[in-house]
Amino acid sequence: MRLIVPLQAVAQGRGGLVLGSLIPCALFYFLQFYLRRHRPSSSSSPPPSSSDSNLSELTSMHRSFSRNLLSTRGSAGPSCISSRGAALARGDDNPYYVGLKRCAEDPYDASSNPDGFVQLGLAENRLSLDLIRDWLVSNWKDSLLSEEQELSVRGLATYQPHDGLMELKMIMSSFIGWLNEGYSFLLEINCFIIFFIKQAVSEFMGHIMQGSISFNPSQLVLTAGATPAVEILSFCLADAGNAFLVPSPYYPGWDRDIKWRTGIELIPVPCRSTNNFNISIPALERAFNQSKKRGVKVRAVIVSNPNNPVGNLIDQETLIGLLDFVTEKNIHLISDEIFAGSTYGNDQFVSVAEILDVENFDKSRVHIIYGLSKDLSIPGFRIGVIYSHNENVLAASSKLARFSSISAPTQRLLVSMLSDARFISEYLAINRERLQNMQALFVDGLKELGIKCASSSGGLYCWADMSKLIGSYSEKGELQLWDRLLNVAKVNATPGSTCHCIEPGWFRCCFSTLEKSDIPLVMERIRTVIQSN
Amino acid sequence: MRLIVPLQAVAQGRGGLVLGSLIPCALFYFLQFYLRRHRPSSSSSPPPSSSDSNLSELTSMHRSFSRNLLSTRGSAGPSCISSRGAALARGDDNPYYVGLKRCAEDPYDASSNPDGFVQLGLAENRLSLDLIRDWLVSNWKDSLLSEEQELSVRGLATYQPHDGLMELKMIMSSFIGWLNEGYSFLLEINCFIIFFIKQAVSEFMGHIMQGSISFNPSQLVLTAGATPAVEILSFCLADAGNAFLVPSPYYPGWDRDIKWRTGIELIPVPCRSTNNFNISIPALERAFNQSKKRGVKVRAVIVSNPNNPVGNLIDQETLIGLLDFVTEKNIHLISDEIFAGSTYGNDQFVSVAEILDVENFDKSRVHIIYGLSKDLSIPGFRIGVIYSHNENVLAASSKLARFSSISAPTQRLLVSMLSDARFISEYLAINRERLQNMQALFVDGLKELGIKCASSSGGLYCWADMSKLIGSYSEKGELQLWDRLLNVAKVNATPGSTCHCIEPGWFRCCFSTLEKSDIPLVMERIRTVIQSN
Repeated sequence: MRLIVPLQAVAQGRGGLVLGSLIPCALFYFLQFYLRRHRPSSSSSPPPSSSDSNLSELTSMHRSFSRNLLSTRGSAGPSCISSRGAALARGDDNPYYVGLKRCAEDPYDASSNPDGFVQLGLAENRLSLDLIRDWLVSNWKDSLLSEEQELSVRGLATYQPHDGLMELKMIMSSFIGWLNEGYSFLLEINCFIIFFIKQAVSEFMGHIMQGSISFNPSQLVLTAGATPAVEILSFCLADAGNAFLVPSPYYPGWDRDIKWRTGIELIPVPCRSTNNFNISIPALERAFNQSKKRGVKVRAVIVSNPNNPVGNLIDQETLIGLLDFVTEKNIHLISDEIFAGSTYGNDQFVSVAEILDVENFDKSRVHIIYGLSKDLSIPGFRIGVIYSHNENVLAASSKLARFSSISAPTQRLLVSMLSDARFISEYLAINRERLQNMQALFVDGLKELGIKCASSSGGLYCWADMSKLIGSYSEKGELQLWDRLLNVAKVNATPGSTCHCIEPGWFRCCFSTLEKSDIPLVMERIRTVIQSN
Repeated sequence: MRLIVPLQAVAQGRGGLVLGSLIPCALFYFLQFYLRRHRPSSSSSPPPSSSDSNLSELTSMHRSFSRNLLSTRGSAGPSCISSRGAALARGDDNPYYVGLKRCAEDPYDASSNPDGFVQLGLAENRLSLDLIRDWLVSNWKDSLLSEEQELSVRGLATYQPHDGLMELKMIMSSFIGWLNEGYSFLLEINCFIIFFIKQAVSEFMGHIMQGSISFNPSQLVLTAGATPAVEILSFCLADAGNAFLVPSPYYPGWDRDIKWRTGIELIPVPCRSTNNFNISIPALERAFNQSKKRGVKVRAVIVSNPNNPVGNLIDQETLIGLLDFVTEKNIHLISDEIFAGSTYGNDQFVSVAEILDVENFDKSRVHIIYGLSKDLSIPGFRIGVIYSHNENVLAASSKLARFSSISAPTQRLLVSMLSDARFISEYLAINRERLQNMQALFVDGLKELGIKCASSSGGLYCWADMSKLIGSYSEKGELQLWDRLLNVAKVNATPGSTCHCIEPGWFRCCFSTLEKSDIPLVMERIRTVIQSN
């Protein structure tokens, strides 16, 4: 303003108003330009949207002159973020994330986007979303606001315990115990519940559970998804620089979830196809001794059961072997059982909790990770669980749960959903059936293409042996096939190397995001790649 | 079983069945007892509930014999957790947490628990919960399930972007911009919205915003509360061992939220009562130089505006001074503006974003923390925001948001609530009025007791000078007064030493959890302590 007025006086006469506006603006534009070139600019500042920049430029033009000089004066360079932040900010070239991103940007949909990318890389269950939808439509409103609305709004809006509401912990404990009883047990409950009003169901479930595996609600810490659950537990069990032994192939996300912020090292311990990728205790022993030699302290073994990515279950003998191993080495066992309710086939899932219930191991070194993203098809709800007998782990992880709390409305909704025993039992039964059908269809489809899968009994995926399709029997050959599957066939499967599988050519294929009717198309796309070999 | 059968044969004859059952049980009991005493027990394992232990004992008795021997064999001692986990597991003796815990265990309620502890330690706003309740009752169901239920359930149940839904980011951006325009602007909107249908309101708000402070939705990262927001941002800006300068007194939770997992040091930079605790740039300069001398790298200045615990606002001149300071030192500025909408009085709140909009500072070094816990009275919803122009910070913190995601149902609900411009504007206006009234009543009450408060214009608390009431003018004297307030008067106020206040005798008193009618009782309780001096 200070400068515009005198300049208007200079540009008097015809068109003076126009020139008087334009000239100072132009002058200021070049002044800005000059100053910007001669002050340290931040390479990390994103380009503002055009409307933003125009606006702020206009408003700042006449006020920022003195400020420019001032702020330029002492600046020692562009702003830098932390080295750990910068490492995270860099793009991922890991095929697991590259594939997920490609699919998210252009997802296949039979009707709206038939040429899009087919997502076999994401363990998300869409097979039974209709059941969840129907429940939500019927129960949404009632589940949250009772007649005593005063009480309800306090329970929703105000601060709640960071590690989860006790009501949800109670019903979650029953639910996890319930899953472990298997399908036949659910049918029993189905017959019973017609005698009970809804409000009594949770007590009823707690009562029923006492005879079998019991999960104590006060030993549960609830978090916003299983991702923070495994991070928080890891933080509590190991210091930066310590290591976990991980039978491989393992879930690629662990490299991110466990390592990023905790500074813990993950040491893959290879399992072999000759043994259907079952865990080998002697291999754990060797890995433990090797770590010891190079001065790395191993603090735990972490396993997934049902295994991700293979889909096999850990049998009772191996579980006991693992417990013996961690006892002897005086370390911990983390069992990620997030697919416990997504099992099918004849093999019976056995939770490590069941072994602890009947065998006299030191319970304080055994910890279970669970969540509702897979078994209840609600990853969007972000519900994770740490279950531990170790009171120090519980105390520390309850405190850390403040960084990963579940919102109260979502918790209330879940209390209501999980208390609806009839819905839950029906859901689990139907979901298991659909999962089994889909798995059979998908595995058969691959078989017709000459691709065999590892034997599996759980999870939302199969573990396919495509080693015959790779050019060179190496990680390079595997990634070349992955690239052709993604970029030629537009099919995103997860290559085994991202799961630290020691044998090249294995791929994890998640089938639960598909419709049955999609399978022929997916197989046809894969066939294209095979034929172009 | 193997042992029970032969023992039954030994105990043949009258009562043989009874003895045949009892004797082996007794023998096994003593065997268990013997083995337990002679194997390393874990001191960290919590005592199982009595029903649990009885049941598991009974079921395991006849199966665990061989296992006991095996599992005892190689155990090298009780299981240990990480040193950082153990540090967290230890109880807090910080008066801030001790007071909060006491109140939570036995909370005052005028009708149901009149002898309970009065909570002045928690910045939670209950003054306008009735408005939130009414909105939820009317809009709960509609807000989440549209007529196209297929779409809705996918948007609720399946995986969503970890750093928040774009819809919520858009409406949050408008909301934050809106807050910064102040009350008069809200009235304008109030007049406008009657012409717009609900669905159009968000666009409308975005449109309106362009003329004033604009918050770009793509520069927002949403997290499960402001607690993880500040932790994630800190992790991205500083490495372990680096430090932040923090004008003190400051929010006691930062010592937990910023330090626990990131390893960042917080350096208090004292503000003085003579200046109503306003920020002093020369003091920052001195602290910066001192840190440099002892080899500690300062990476940022973090401030709260409105200040917590004082309640004063940072004026424009000081904000510019802060921006000059961080520019000159080539460090970052974090402005926690979580109480931006909880202001009252005549002073106008100025966001640092407003300065950035009109002054030509390097935006990549300025970051804002926000959340809905305070201004919308919904801490139970866990909604936090990182707002940054720095694309590396955005990239890294979006990735870290996977550990602190907000559930999709809660996000959908919020999109609906924040889009209801009429509700939001009414809520904010009424809430501000109630806040102001409550603040005036509370401060007057203290004044009658001879206790003066610092001048304030925002927040849910006042900053009370009780230095005349302390025995010795020291931290010890302050904590003695805190102890008497808590244990004699059953009033939990936060002592200034937990906020790193350099002058003893100041207390933060949150008044927004009270009813107006509670104030005489609270003052009476404080008077008891004064009179017993």
